[in-house]
Amino acid sequence: MLTVVKIGGNIVDDPQKLADFLTDFAVLEGFKILVHGGGKLATRFSEKLGISVQMHEGRRITDAETLEVITMVYGGLINKQIVAALQAKKCNAIGLIGADLNIVTADKRPMKNGVDYGYVGDIRQVNRLTLTRLIEAGACPVIAPITHNGEGMLLNTNADTIASAIAVSLAPDFPTRLMYCFEKKGVLTNPNDEESVISRINRNLFEQYKADGTISAGMIPKLENALAAVEQGVEQVIISRADMLTCLDSPDFVGTKVY
Amino acid sequence: MLTVVKIGGNIVDDPQKLADFLTDFAVLEGFKILVHGGGKLATRFSEKLGISVQMHEGRRITDAETLEVITMVYGGLINKQIVAALQAKKCNAIGLIGADLNIVTADKRPMKNGVDYGYVGDIRQVNRLTLTRLIEAGACPVIAPITHNGEGMLLNTNADTIASAIAVSLAPDFPTRLMYCFEKKGVLTNPNDEESVISRINRNLFEQYKADGTISAGMIPKLENALAAVEQGVEQVIISRADMLTCLDSPDFVGTKVY
Repeated sequence: MLTVVKIGGNIVDDPQKLADFLTDFAVLEGFKILVHGGGKLATRFSEKLGISVQMHEGRRITDAETLEVITMVYGGLINKQIVAALQAKKCNAIGLIGADLNIVTADKRPMKNGVDYGYVGDIRQVNRLTLTRLIEAGACPVIAPITHNGEGMLLNTNADTIASAIAVSLAPDFPTRLMYCFEKKGVLTNPNDEESVISRINRNLFEQYKADGTISAGMIPKLENALAAVEQGVEQVIISRADMLTCLDSPDFVGTKVY
Repeated sequence: MLTVVKIGGNIVDDPQKLADFLTDFAVLEGFKILVHGGGKLATRFSEKLGISVQMHEGRRITDAETLEVITMVYGGLINKQIVAALQAKKCNAIGLIGADLNIVTADKRPMKNGVDYGYVGDIRQVNRLTLTRLIEAGACPVIAPITHNGEGMLLNTNADTIASAIAVSLAPDFPTRLMYCFEKKGVLTNPNDEESVISRINRNLFEQYKADGTISAGMIPKLENALAAVEQGVEQVIISRADMLTCLDSPDFVGTKVY
């Protein structure tokens, strides 16, 4: 069994939550890969360095200076701190970006409607053989959300997408599950009620919930991505709180399983 | 044959020199490992971030904030830019610090005469088996000068020392040579005459040159380290300019070989 876990800002930005998560992750059995986002630290460093964050319709534009900060903060600071913490817990972590061993290549996103998103990459290929060899040799890849185009250019790439692409790519080699650590307990039917978690969902149920308005707009792309991963061979996508990692297979589990 | 190459600020700080060096390094035959220092970029970012550099007798004190900057700049920015550039030249680079796969552990340097150097590491062990497996699998490690203590603490560690420790550690597995890329053509008998390169030197010659004052004070520790590596099994230590990398075995070579 391979478990690909993605953590984002709600964990990475909180030292105590991150430490607790890494304790749980270190003892997770089977093959495992961690993909981390960057949280607010990159923005904080950009501000300190006097780099203005450019946005277009809620999306950050990655200019050359911002790419440098992301490479430093995600690929350097956060990634290596996680690796050192996991090593201290006897998990044989190795910090990687897409350029390392050429594990994830991407294409620079073309201009859309006159908007240039800058150094943003859309995934071209995951190097399945190399990742398989690494994990079979006992390594635990810890992957920062940076890819490369194979011609020397680093590219900022969405961490959710990297996690999904890796899980899909390795699914032929291992029974694979993908866990998105979420700030809520799972996908809720009522956003104001933490207990209204949808415990299991597949394509049919999703279409029903979407039609009757049960699922809120913000969750639709997340579930679409999860269903796409399942339809490409991933056994299960879990959307749940990070502290559920230790009880994924137990009756105590609370969260959404996409199958 | 394994070649361990160390580059420092005079290459890393100069984009054109770095690009030229990486072109040469990518085509170097045999197994290879690159160890890079950080150059002036960390100092520049520290200044921009308003972190004051503390020195004691010419040595930098690595406080917690400086360690963060070093981890970002050396372990993130410089390391990953080198990896992406090498990948573009079809060299299967992988960027690592000591914590990754636990390849280099160190001990935090104890206080000396009341001076606390902060997060500085003295090498404890090189993980010979893991490095051997990586290079035998066709990977080219690119190593930033950061180690860890195995308990979650990252440590700033001298790049020359890391290069030497790795070469010594792998010498039982491969015929190994270590190249220090230097700003001059080699060790000079006259610091003002670039042509006065000592082409070959061993322990006996070193002691003679030292006794008669031929070798300047600044070169003594560098040569002591090189001789120590040779005495621990490294076949040859080369002190020369980076552009000599392509002609190490040719009659065109100019530089100092320590044997």
